[in-house]
Order: sequence, then structure tokens, then C-alpha cells
Amino acid sequence: MASLSSPSHCCSSSSSSAYSNSSSVRFHHHHYISNLEFYANSPKKLGSKKISLQSRGSPYSNTILMQDGVVATTAATVENEAPTKKLKDVLSSASPPEEHNVNNDKSTVSITVVGASGDLAKKKIFPALFALYYEDCLPEHFTIFGYARSKMTDAELRNMVSKTLTCRIDKRENCGEKMEQFLKRCFNHSGQYDSKENFVELDKKLKEHEAGRVSNRLFYLSIPPNIFIDAVRCASVSASSANGWTRVIVEKPFGRDSESSAALTRSLKQYLEEDQIFRIDHYLGKELVENLSVLRFSNLIFEPLWSRQYIKNVQFIFSEDFGTEGRGGYFDNYGIIRDIMQNHLLQILALFAMETPVSLDAEDIRNEKVKVLRSMRTLSIDDVVIGQYKSQTKGDITYPAYTDDKTVPKDSLTPTFAAAALFIDNARWDGVPFLMKAGKALHDRRAEIRVQFRHVPGNLYNRKFGTHLDRATNELVIRVQPDEAIYLKINNKVPGLGMRLDRSNLNLLYKARYSKEIPDAYERLLLDAIEGERRLFIRSDELNAAWALFTPLLKELEDKRLIPEYYPYGSRGPVGAHYLAARYNVKWGDHGVDE
Amino acid sequence: MASLSSPSHCCSSSSSSAYSNSSSVRFHHHHYISNLEFYANSPKKLGSKKISLQSRGSPYSNTILMQDGVVATTAATVENEAPTKKLKDVLSSASPPEEHNVNNDKSTVSITVVGASGDLAKKKIFPALFALYYEDCLPEHFTIFGYARSKMTDAELRNMVSKTLTCRIDKRENCGEKMEQFLKRCFNHSGQYDSKENFVELDKKLKEHEAGRVSNRLFYLSIPPNIFIDAVRCASVSASSANGWTRVIVEKPFGRDSESSAALTRSLKQYLEEDQIFRIDHYLGKELVENLSVLRFSNLIFEPLWSRQYIKNVQFIFSEDFGTEGRGGYFDNYGIIRDIMQNHLLQILALFAMETPVSLDAEDIRNEKVKVLRSMRTLSIDDVVIGQYKSQTKGDITYPAYTDDKTVPKDSLTPTFAAAALFIDNARWDGVPFLMKAGKALHDRRAEIRVQFRHVPGNLYNRKFGTHLDRATNELVIRVQPDEAIYLKINNKVPGLGMRLDRSNLNLLYKARYSKEIPDAYERLLLDAIEGERRLFIRSDELNAAWALFTPLLKELEDKRLIPEYYPYGSRGPVGAHYLAARYNVKWGDHGVDE
Repeated sequence: MASLSSPSHCCSSSSSSAYSNSSSVRFHHHHYISNLEFYANSPKKLGSKKISLQSRGSPYSNTILMQDGVVATTAATVENEAPTKKLKDVLSSASPPEEHNVNNDKSTVSITVVGASGDLAKKKIFPALFALYYEDCLPEHFTIFGYARSKMTDAELRNMVSKTLTCRIDKRENCGEKMEQFLKRCFNHSGQYDSKENFVELDKKLKEHEAGRVSNRLFYLSIPPNIFIDAVRCASVSASSANGWTRVIVEKPFGRDSESSAALTRSLKQYLEEDQIFRIDHYLGKELVENLSVLRFSNLIFEPLWSRQYIKNVQFIFSEDFGTEGRGGYFDNYGIIRDIMQNHLLQILALFAMETPVSLDAEDIRNEKVKVLRSMRTLSIDDVVIGQYKSQTKGDITYPAYTDDKTVPKDSLTPTFAAAALFIDNARWDGVPFLMKAGKALHDRRAEIRVQFRHVPGNLYNRKFGTHLDRATNELVIRVQPDEAIYLKINNKVPGLGMRLDRSNLNLLYKARYSKEIPDAYERLLLDAIEGERRLFIRSDELNAAWALFTPLLKELEDKRLIPEYYPYGSRGPVGAHYLAARYNVKWGDHGVDE
Repeated sequence: MASLSSPSHCCSSSSSSAYSNSSSVRFHHHHYISNLEFYANSPKKLGSKKISLQSRGSPYSNTILMQDGVVATTAATVENEAPTKKLKDVLSSASPPEEHNVNNDKSTVSITVVGASGDLAKKKIFPALFALYYEDCLPEHFTIFGYARSKMTDAELRNMVSKTLTCRIDKRENCGEKMEQFLKRCFNHSGQYDSKENFVELDKKLKEHEAGRVSNRLFYLSIPPNIFIDAVRCASVSASSANGWTRVIVEKPFGRDSESSAALTRSLKQYLEEDQIFRIDHYLGKELVENLSVLRFSNLIFEPLWSRQYIKNVQFIFSEDFGTEGRGGYFDNYGIIRDIMQNHLLQILALFAMETPVSLDAEDIRNEKVKVLRSMRTLSIDDVVIGQYKSQTKGDITYPAYTDDKTVPKDSLTPTFAAAALFIDNARWDGVPFLMKAGKALHDRRAEIRVQFRHVPGNLYNRKFGTHLDRATNELVIRVQPDEAIYLKINNKVPGLGMRLDRSNLNLLYKARYSKEIPDAYERLLLDAIEGERRLFIRSDELNAAWALFTPLLKELEDKRLIPEYYPYGSRGPVGAHYLAARYNVKWGDHGVDE
């Protein structure tokens, strides 16, 4: 295994593990895949040399990788010496580490953040890139470009970026130094998003930095949806890589409904291949969402329970304890269902409920997700409750209503809260309610999955529970934020001479178990995009299936101008959510005394 | 429910519970059963009026209880007014609490500790009785008698007892006062264990204290086995209750093998009915052993897994970190297999592996335990490893060998360690190894149950585990001592950008969850005996079945004078235990890095 360990310590995560031998395999594999793709899988429409061979080697499987490698060296038309060498690295445990650097010297990655002065770029993208750099996860040769309409010098961009960079709490040493080095690799290019000329200028600058190395280019489009396509077109025509890969990360919203989403996809596909499109849903990059499949598929104790036979209902809960706070302009056009449910929660649901994939490869997982989405019943308006927060005064403070937001129309009916019951009409989940709840300006901030199990048949202890039978069911809670945790509620005897039962938690609080800081979702996703790992990005057919579920409902809500149920800012949301749950014999798990 | 709450706060255990409404039912039920039994179920041979009606009402079921109550009031020949009243208490929610005291006034319990100056009496029995008194678990009228050969005054006994009494750490207030009150209820009677006259004198004293109330008498025989029967005979003939119940608690050893045990039972039955005999196995009084059935039968997530289909093996581990320390005389005649395995560990195994009982009633549970014991394969000598500790020097300290103990013959081959593989040949457990391990002078002190689950079939993450597949199985650990805990080992993704798995625990540490001190096993068992709850005591047929499994092995070991494998004091025991485990493809769970 020693020969597989990467020269980077990017992924050598910490703490006590029994599996440290296999720990550092991933980065190296990805690294290797990147190299293969760069030769064999250069972009069809963006690049000049079309090679249709797909490099879909499993990041978890040496064998497949090597086979791909062999194929790649056969099919690649230029510079096929390097992949052969690379392959030899994998095959031979005696290969000197210097050979890695030889390859690194020949290729480079340029990351262009389009919309560099935007909020997301400043708060998430640049800090995530720095974190990856700090952890040695970026390739040796990389360049970061900010692309924005506002005129900025490199120094001004660096100054802007430096303000949001933070150092990992567990690794503050030489952070300042690292930050300086990182900023030196950041440059600015000012231009219009729809100007070919401006992108040609960018291309020129990129080429200077690439200095004749094989060029791989990642564009992160952090711009409003109405200029997506223009930017994609310009980047594609004027700034795509000539001899490496070109990938584009796009942010939600991916349309407002089936039609607009399909139109967007069609437009993207004029300029990009499916495997160049990286639709980001940052919830899929969260640590515990990543862990969901591990929990299910590597623990014998869970998989047998994972069906209608044992699971009574599943709940996906998202709440924020703040409102739009003067930034409701964008939100008002979408509403909470499009903003949270149709993407984040539905994606997690699909991961939760999918059948076991053939492998952990991106396409296998995404195939299963599409299947489960296609097995779902289209949402009916009867199975949805919508709400909007109203003003509330607590002590001296008056919290605003949603429509008090200056950027929101006074008569807006846009839901800031929604609850929905969904159903999967397949053999595994027939009849099991999947409940979703998402809202702004609620009493707490959380994102979690709750799995409520059925009652124990013929429970000997029923009399012990009295009227609390519902409360006596087991529950598995996967808390995505805040304070990542997994806990399993079990019935237990209260210590003492009596026979009294209560519900205790079998607990795994990440903070207590793992000393390492949990990486931000954007770090994982950016790294995956650089490495060509598509598992956590949304494929076009997945997106279609997701929209198909919600579009009729969204149209009906808007056509009928349905009045939302108003709830006070900071409350637990509309009571309608409880009635919806009650119809399916469910109790929301986040409202119990022992939640 | 309010009407069911007992005037005693004996069992109103503390802390946050969802089921507080049903919390105090148990004591009341037991109390009520006692009252019924005292009328309807007085001893056949000891008592003067034989009434064969058995009061086996479920302590968890009002209905059955009431039916029993009705029957009792019909069948009882004397004072059947009280049970009717009692029944009314249960039926009517408006009955005043004073009626409870009316009953209490008419009956009394006398507890005679035979062998009062012995170690167990001083260390466990008197402190447990005091704890019950302190918690208001003893009836209003009770008397405690110490019976011993040594001449002692009441004051001397009280002085002796007072030295070992401790106050609960969570309730120190007025403990001194309570202690004084308790000691005033303690008396001494000196006499020979085989002297009818001395027991007649005791009877006279007991009667004085009972002062005409209905007399219930509990004899705790804390004396060597060779004088058991004499004491039982004398107590039965000369000191049994005339109008209430008489019960006898007997301590192990219950014989040395099937024959001697059967002989002992036959002798006991000359003087006692089955339901007067309370064979104590204090391991069954441990909190987590009590909880074992709750875990299994009130949690949906465990019961489906509880079979050969999901469980790979089960381990019962007992270790002490000290040797016989000059008290090996008794032990040498029995050895670790008789001392720990054939009783404590086998009892826990039976509770673990039994089928779901019809109810939680004592007879239903004991029926299932007998069934599982009878389904077990008789132990073969090939499936057993024995060991004996030898001297070891660590730094300045030399720890003695077993045979250095002055009370142990120099050439003793008695095992101080044993490991065994047992099998249950029924549909649920066919082929699943149940491993036991028990030893003295080992490196740590623990008692625990470990359930190792099978590998995940078709595990997608296999490559992640590399050669550590065995380590990747789920494990449920129920730690009985020290530091009571339940934990479930699950595979989990190590937070970080890589896909690295490790095994984390879903944890329930009792110390952290429950603030209340966990009662000593003897408290529970004494209270059960007083209340007539037989669930945790060993029935004669159970004992026979247990001996039947071990007797051929024990005979063969002694006949062949098999040499034990010597292991250093303070070590992890003979390596033979590992070879035994390996034969059944098992790894002991207490030897891992992440145990």
C-alpha cells in the first residue's frame, strides 16, 4: 500500500483509526484520474481534439483504474508517455516519488471564479480554495482568477479575498505565510459576463500562467441565472482549454420549473458535454450527508432495517433562525420550496432511499438516485403546507415580517416555510411517508434526518409505556448541522430498583469523537470538481426528475395564489405542519421533549 | 394512574424520563402480590394451612393481578377482607391512601441473616438491607435478625453492622439518623446452624417482634454448603411462619455437579416448596443484566438482528484483576468454571439467547431460559481452555502464583481461568459460537457481553477496509461492570476530504446519562425475595439443565487431572483462549485496539 500514498498530505485526516493503511488512497487516485482524463478525455466541443473515451475509473478500485489507464494510453494521441509512467507508478511499488513531480510539472489547473466580488465567492469559494491550498490538496501548479465586472487590480482582489480567509483552528502555524503564498497565486480579470473579447483576454492571461504546461480549467459560475448561459458561451468559445479539460461549476437555481430547467440544460449542452457540467448542491458536500451511504452500506445493523418493514417514516428537517434580512429580492422569485426542498432536501432523500448501487462510482450512484426520484409520486397540493413569517416583538426587539424586507413586494405570497409529505411507490418504500420541512425565521437552526422506526410488534413492555407508545419507538437521527452528530434513540431501563423505561440515546457527537475540524462543503466539492469526481454533483436527468416532482405543485400554488399560513418570526412555524404530519400518523421528531 | 402510586418512594427513580406516569407501579404491584400470597399462598410444608393456589399474577399486568385477586378472595380461608380492600384500591381511583397502612399494620417481615458474621453478610447483605430501608422499600414493620455461632449481643451485632453501612452518595441528608433507626431494628441471635433448640429460641424472639401480626419470614442462608441443609431443616421445623410466608434465600454453590446439585435440591425440597426457594445469582441483579431484556424486547432495531442470520458470535467476558489473596480454600474446591461460568455467565447467556417469553412473569421467563439451556450442546473438553495464574514480578512488586496462596494445595490444578465455546442447537442460534471467558488475576476487571455481527454482504466499502474486514463488523457491547455502559460500534466516515472509514461508538455511558447511583445487585434481589418476585432467581429445573451442560466436562477435567495453561498474574490470560476463538473464526472483542 505504501506505493499508493500520495505525496500530498491533503487527505491524511487525523485521529485514531484502524484503517490508516488505506487512508490516503483517494487523493492519489483522483490525481491519477485527472491525469488520465487530461489526455484521454479532453472536451468534445470546448477542446480542439475530440476524444470520446470516458475515464470513469472507480476512485475506489485500482483494477478498473489500471484498465482505464491501459485503454487511455492506447487511445490518447498525444503525449501518451506520461500516463504510462503514471500507470507504472501504481503498478510498481519501487517507483521513486520524484516521478509524481515530473507529471505535475507538465500540467496546471486554473480556477476562474466568475462573479468574484459576489457574496458566495467571498464567503465560501475563496476560503475553500485557500483551505485546500493550506491542506496541500491543490496541484503544484495552479492559478486562481477572479472574474468580475467591477474594475479591480490584482492587489485589490487580493485585499478583498484576504479579508475572508481564516486559518483552521487546529493548524494555525505558519498560516500567515501560507496565506501570502496563496494570495500570490490569485489574480483579477475585469470583464463583462457576455463579452467574448473579455474572455479572450482572460484566455491570454491564463495561457501566460500555464506557461506551456497542459492546461486544465475550471470555471466556477457564481453569477445570477440570467447570465449563466452568456458566460458559459463566452468561456466555451474563448477561454476553454486547448489540450486539457475544461469544467464548469454551476450554482442553483437550475431553473424555476421543469421547462425553464430543461431550457437551461439544453443551452448548457450547446457548449458543454454532460461530464463537463458540475451542478453544485452544497448540501451534498456536508460531512454527514457524505456519511449517509457509509452508515447504510457498511453497517450490518442498519441495512436490514432500511425498508417499509421497519421504518415508519423519515423526516428531513431544515430550519434557519433568521429571515431574508434585506436580501429577499432573489428569494422572493423562488420561495422556500425551490430554494431548499426541491434541491437540498430532495437530494438527501434520494441518497437516503436509493437502492444499493452497483459500486460507489459516480454514475452508479447517480443512476440509483434517478431511479428513486422517478419512483416518487408527484407532489399534490393537499400534501403541502406553506407559511410565511410575520413580525413578532419579543421584549424590546421587534423582528420584521417577510414583507417588511424592502427587497420584497408588500403583497408577496412567497412561502418562507413549507412542509410536504412525499411517497416513493416502490417495493422498498411503499406507504412510508417521507416528510420534509423547511423554513426561515424559525426558533432554531438545524438540518437533520430523522428515521422513526415502527412499534415493536407484541411489545412485552407496552404497559410500561402507557399512552406513550409513540414515544417508545426507536429513532435514528443524523444531524447535519449544527454540531454534526448521529444518535439512536433506544428504550432503556432507568437504573434503579423499579422497572421503569425511558428513551436514551446511543450517541456519536462528532465534536467529541473527532478532534479535526470538519471541512466546509465547498472544499469537498471544489476538490471533487478539480479531480473529476462527479458523485456529489447533479446530473441532468436527476435534475429533470427532481423538477418533475415539484413543478405541478409550484404551478398550482402560483396559479391559485394560495395564501400562506402566517407564523411569528422565531416561532416553530405554522401549526398546519402538524396537521399534515398527523394525516399520515407521524409526529415531527424535532418537537418532542427529548428531541 | 395516580391511584396506583405507592406510598413508598422506594422505586420512584430519578432523572429525566418520558414515562414518569408509569414509574412507580412496580412496587405497588409487588406489594399487592405479597399481600395476596400471604393469604392465598402460604407454605405447604412449613406453614400450617396448606393452600395450593399459586399467585402468579404478572407484576406488569393489572388485569391478571385483579383476576388473581378475585380468585384469592374466594379461596382464602382467613381474613379475606383485606385482599378485597386491596383489590378495591386497584380498581377505584378514589380510594384514600390510608388503606395501604391498614394492611401494613397487620403484617410484618422478619429477615434472618444466617451466618451474620460472615464476609458476605457484612459486606453485602446488611448494607443492602439498609439501602432498602433508606429508600423506604422495606415494609413498615420489619425486623432483622443476625444468626451466628459466635456469641454476640445485639449491641455488638449493631456495632459490627454499622461499620459497613454507607450512605448513598446522592442522598446523604439525615443518613446518620436513618442508620440509627435501622440499627434499632437489628437484633442478634447466637446459635448453632444444626440446633433445633436454637431455632426454637429464634422463633420465640421473632414472635415477640411480630407481636401478633401476620408473620412473613425470610431466611438468608449465608453459610457454607455443608451446613445448608441442617439450617434449612431447623428453620423449617422450628422457625417457619405460622400464618404468613416463609422463604429461604440460598447462595451458590448449588452443588459441584449434576449429582450433588440434585441431591441438594432433593434435600431442600424435603422442607421447602419450589416457590419458597430463592437461589440467588447476584449477577442477575446487575442493572445491565436486568436491562438486557428491555433492550431486546422493547427496541425494534435489535430484535430483527437477534439471530444467526445477523449475529456472528456472542462473547461473555468476566475478568478480575486480583487473585484469591489468601482466601483460596473455598475456591480451590470449585474452580473458575463452577464459580463463574456455570452460573453467572450461563445465566446471562440464557437471558440473552432465550426466545421471547409469553410475558414478563417469572415463570414465563424461567421457562424460556430452561428451554434455551436444554437446547445447548453439552460442553466438550476440546472446546475448553483452562489456565492458572503464576507469579509475576513487576518493578518492585512480586505478585503471587495461585499456588502461593497458603489456603491452596501446592499441587492444585484448579483452573483460575477458563475459556469455552458453547453452542445452542436451535433454529435461532444454530452454528453461532457463544464464547465465554472468565479469569482471576488478569490485567483488568470487567464483565461484559459482546455481540459481534456478521460482515455486510456485498460490502461496497470492502476495499476501504483492506485486510481489516473483521474489524469492520458491528459490535454491540453491554458492559455490566465497571462503569455500566451500552455501546454500538458502527462504521463511520472519518470527517475530512478523504473517504476514510473508522469504527466509532454509539454510546450510552450510564454515569453520564443517569445521575442516580445504580443500586447494588443484592438490594434488588433482596427486595424481590421480600416481594415474592422470582424472575431473577434460579428454578430447580434451570439449575439441573445448567449442571447437565458442564458436569461431563468437569468430571473429565478432574479425572484426567488436566494441567492448566499457566499465565502470569496481571496478564491477559492464556493464549490458548485465542486459539479456541480462532477455531470458530472469532476474535475476542476485549483485545482490540479500540475495545
